[in-house]
Amino acid sequence: MFGFSFKPRNKGKSAQTAKERLQILLAHERGGNGSSPDYLPMLQRDILEAIKKHVHVERDAVDIRMERDDELSSLEINIELPGGRTVQSSASS
Amino acid sequence: MFGFSFKPRNKGKSAQTAKERLQILLAHERGGNGSSPDYLPMLQRDILEAIKKHVHVERDAVDIRMERDDELSSLEINIELPGGRTVQSSASS
Repeated sequence: MFGFSFKPRNKGKSAQTAKERLQILLAHERGGNGSSPDYLPMLQRDILEAIKKHVHVERDAVDIRMERDDELSSLEINIELPGGRTVQSSASS
Repeated sequence: MFGFSFKPRNKGKSAQTAKERLQILLAHERGGNGSSPDYLPMLQRDILEAIKKHVHVERDAVDIRMERDDELSSLEINIELPGGRTVQSSASS
């Protein structure tokens, strides 16, 4: 469904300034099945909950874009991670 | 992170034979943070569980590919859906 290529965006920047990021893309191709429910809004909530189980995510660090036409729904979630601190660790910045 | 374009693969085929599909792509760009845990294996399990809450998925209908280099881990999950039957519905084919 997606044609995609991996392009780490900050190849040029030095490692220290490079941000840690998580990107999730979902596409639901309904294949002419008009009656099929739109799963993406439900999955969006579940996926964000799953991520928050493993890493602390600031509210304003999450960018969500959703698009839909008659055959294809897509959801893009971009999350800037706080340099890899996981929920359990008590390390403060 | 991803450069991507949406290309519904079966544009030419008639709607009846077009399959219903769900595609999930995850990318974790560690931004030079070598100590950051690899979230993708954990997220893979949680995302599949989230999907199975909403739609019946046959074991052999799931294709998973994972790649990792020093800066970027990526996970691709392709799922062929059984024409939109949700877990609750008792409609049999």
